[in-house]
Amino acid sequence: MFPTRFRSAIPILLLPVVSSFLIGQTLDAPKSSTYQEIVNHLVAAGLGSGKAYEMLHELCTTIGPRLSGSPQAARAVDWAKRKMEKLGFENVRLEFVMVPRWVRGPVEEASIVRSPWKRTIPLKVCALGGSIGTPRGGITAEVMEVHSFEELQALGDKAKGKIIFFNRRMDRSKFSTGEAYGGAVNQRSRGAIEASKAGGAAALVRSMTTRLDDAPHTGLMNYVDTIPKVPAAAISTLGANLLSDLLKKDKTVKVRLTLSCETLPDVESANVIGELLGSEKPNEIVLIGGHFDSWDKGQGAHDDGAGCMHAVEALRLLKELGLKPKRTIRVVLFMNEENGVRGGQAYAAKERPGEKHIAAIESDAGGFSPRGFGVGADSVTIEKISKWSHLLQPIDAGSITRGGGGVDIAPLAQKGVPSIGLRTEGQKYFDYHHSDNDTIDNINERELELGAIAMAILSYVLAEEGL
Amino acid sequence: MFPTRFRSAIPILLLPVVSSFLIGQTLDAPKSSTYQEIVNHLVAAGLGSGKAYEMLHELCTTIGPRLSGSPQAARAVDWAKRKMEKLGFENVRLEFVMVPRWVRGPVEEASIVRSPWKRTIPLKVCALGGSIGTPRGGITAEVMEVHSFEELQALGDKAKGKIIFFNRRMDRSKFSTGEAYGGAVNQRSRGAIEASKAGGAAALVRSMTTRLDDAPHTGLMNYVDTIPKVPAAAISTLGANLLSDLLKKDKTVKVRLTLSCETLPDVESANVIGELLGSEKPNEIVLIGGHFDSWDKGQGAHDDGAGCMHAVEALRLLKELGLKPKRTIRVVLFMNEENGVRGGQAYAAKERPGEKHIAAIESDAGGFSPRGFGVGADSVTIEKISKWSHLLQPIDAGSITRGGGGVDIAPLAQKGVPSIGLRTEGQKYFDYHHSDNDTIDNINERELELGAIAMAILSYVLAEEGL
Repeated sequence: MFPTRFRSAIPILLLPVVSSFLIGQTLDAPKSSTYQEIVNHLVAAGLGSGKAYEMLHELCTTIGPRLSGSPQAARAVDWAKRKMEKLGFENVRLEFVMVPRWVRGPVEEASIVRSPWKRTIPLKVCALGGSIGTPRGGITAEVMEVHSFEELQALGDKAKGKIIFFNRRMDRSKFSTGEAYGGAVNQRSRGAIEASKAGGAAALVRSMTTRLDDAPHTGLMNYVDTIPKVPAAAISTLGANLLSDLLKKDKTVKVRLTLSCETLPDVESANVIGELLGSEKPNEIVLIGGHFDSWDKGQGAHDDGAGCMHAVEALRLLKELGLKPKRTIRVVLFMNEENGVRGGQAYAAKERPGEKHIAAIESDAGGFSPRGFGVGADSVTIEKISKWSHLLQPIDAGSITRGGGGVDIAPLAQKGVPSIGLRTEGQKYFDYHHSDNDTIDNINERELELGAIAMAILSYVLAEEGL
Repeated sequence: MFPTRFRSAIPILLLPVVSSFLIGQTLDAPKSSTYQEIVNHLVAAGLGSGKAYEMLHELCTTIGPRLSGSPQAARAVDWAKRKMEKLGFENVRLEFVMVPRWVRGPVEEASIVRSPWKRTIPLKVCALGGSIGTPRGGITAEVMEVHSFEELQALGDKAKGKIIFFNRRMDRSKFSTGEAYGGAVNQRSRGAIEASKAGGAAALVRSMTTRLDDAPHTGLMNYVDTIPKVPAAAISTLGANLLSDLLKKDKTVKVRLTLSCETLPDVESANVIGELLGSEKPNEIVLIGGHFDSWDKGQGAHDDGAGCMHAVEALRLLKELGLKPKRTIRVVLFMNEENGVRGGQAYAAKERPGEKHIAAIESDAGGFSPRGFGVGADSVTIEKISKWSHLLQPIDAGSITRGGGGVDIAPLAQKGVPSIGLRTEGQKYFDYHHSDNDTIDNINERELELGAIAMAILSYVLAEEGL
């Protein structure tokens, strides 16, 4: 192609889809021009010589995945504290918190042991987070495929003793992959409970992705005290399709599932915190962060090393440009989002005399190009933040939407703090999510940096203007 | 992460950046609701069971790159004609056109043959499209690094006999990668001319990408009749950095460059055309297309197999839903965009009695998520198209910008036809562009399909409403 095609792409307008109120066009002129200059500097500095990718690369390759309570998570906490100190952040500290410790263990296997093919067919599976293990020799049973809890309940005794295979797909016809995930994930979160209620021996759940590949995707599952625990594992989408095809030919197909996972006693871990102290109102806080724990598959690159490095890089960029906003910007890397939210709960529960949180921004939608922010707050607050949309437009991230936040800042939101979530280009998110695919080589340096720039812009304006 | 974070992301507003006129909010209500339903069907059908990826996969893996005049390009023309016929397109035909035939030949090598390292260091290079070859034994010469034509001209006699090494980087601090490309690409397009004017023996040009890797990126270079021709090649960005570092230590570093490329006589090729005939005004045409030729590196996946499959899939989707717009939608796969634009010129030059082109839409910005369309037309036309923005918003592609079109439809634009270019998420485009990186495995199925859906939506509304 020729360069000309790019030359004159000047944005003219973006039509409101749901416009619930009239909006101002810009901030007051003098302030606006200053902000615009700052935005230009942040964009040039971030894209020109940003450090988000380098930091995330170091985290992913020298430490790797960081499941709560694991030695890697402990190393990551040390790493982040030292990194923040080296970057000159203020009040760098750890806030300790007890977290669950679930371990996958050495064995994780499944095979089709009886089928029309007359030979053992290996399946790619992984234990779901929180699952109990199987007996040492595994569970060998016939398989009952279902697509909903209603279908399972209607089976009555037929499910007894079987491995319950939850094979409802994420609906790929939906534009929002998050919505497609939301429409399928109860199989993972509640599958073991429902399998047990039906008398099943274990739950085998189709991986939460629209992609067809052989990587199983883990994620949180739950038990309730009143119902016996059965083991639960995810199966790759290719494996799920194969198993389903074989079951169509022969209902007596048998699978053996062996898992060595277990839950150990809680261990101490920490949220990692660093600040850029406000020049006028240091006790008023704009929190930016992500979750520092990850699942134990891949490297926790998109989920949520990216979000953590977004926050660290945002503060680093503001410092590099010598910006000193009126209010404090605080980076918090929360521990244990994936299986407990202990870090988010402890952060919100802690007494902080004299402090007031103006807003909290979480990045937990991957290291893709940012598109804007979702705001969970009252209409007046959303309107105010929407007026800053034009400051995010230079990086195509000016779409401000109603509703948003993050799992770690939800406890703050319950205390009335406006909660904001970074929104990204989301089509590929679940290709990587909670699987061995979630590695640094699936992250683009420029796209990652743009997320940090978006966080820097919004947090800076919030820290200057308040809410 | 938890599903909740995605639940309530309802777009509220997108602020205009440059709003040069007042805009209406929607089409007339009844029509609008009909269009909205059609959009919903197109999105669900495309994402649920679209064929864009499967078709592009077949093109990339069974035929591969399609340089104008090559046997692969000829095979691709046959393939596309058969594909359109099989899909039931109307008036499927070829429009023949003579195209240049440049061939890379079997040899393409460069090495540092004298340096402080005292040993031969291979460099990854590739001939630029249109370059002459070197003498059989190559050109061995000292290297003169420059960053602009002005710097080269100021050297006077010092450049004589040397390999002129154009090492100005794409400015990665810019958000628009197209703008960064535009700021560096004259080294490639005009480097051989300027090198020859300065008495240089050859031009060696830093690859047009912000990515640091070892893949050279080809692309068009030019000669003028009045100035002796010298060979020109691209060097990978890693190779360029290494060479530059060595030159800082030792100005007498020598490189040997050997290229076997040459230009053969023109050959016959063709634009491939198929239609969905209009129900009321079949002679009024909405053209959608991309360029079917590519460079001979990689597979021409993003550039521009993706754009071609966008257009084919858009028409296929409209047909699948049984939609029959008032005006004709015509798919044109143009031949020879990369090194001649003969297809685009021939298409516009051909007499088409009774026909009127309402608009032309080209997709040539890669198979990434669509963000909107750039419109090259008068203000009234742009305003009209902008009013349909809300129909593209369900797939986040509603940003309508001023200025746009495409290289192949530029000859039509010169005849007054409104020209429209699909705009995509562009951060990674030049990672792949014109290099061995441009392969099907760097394309995401959902992102690709969304581009086709965007083309289907806009072309359908244009064919219904006219301009």
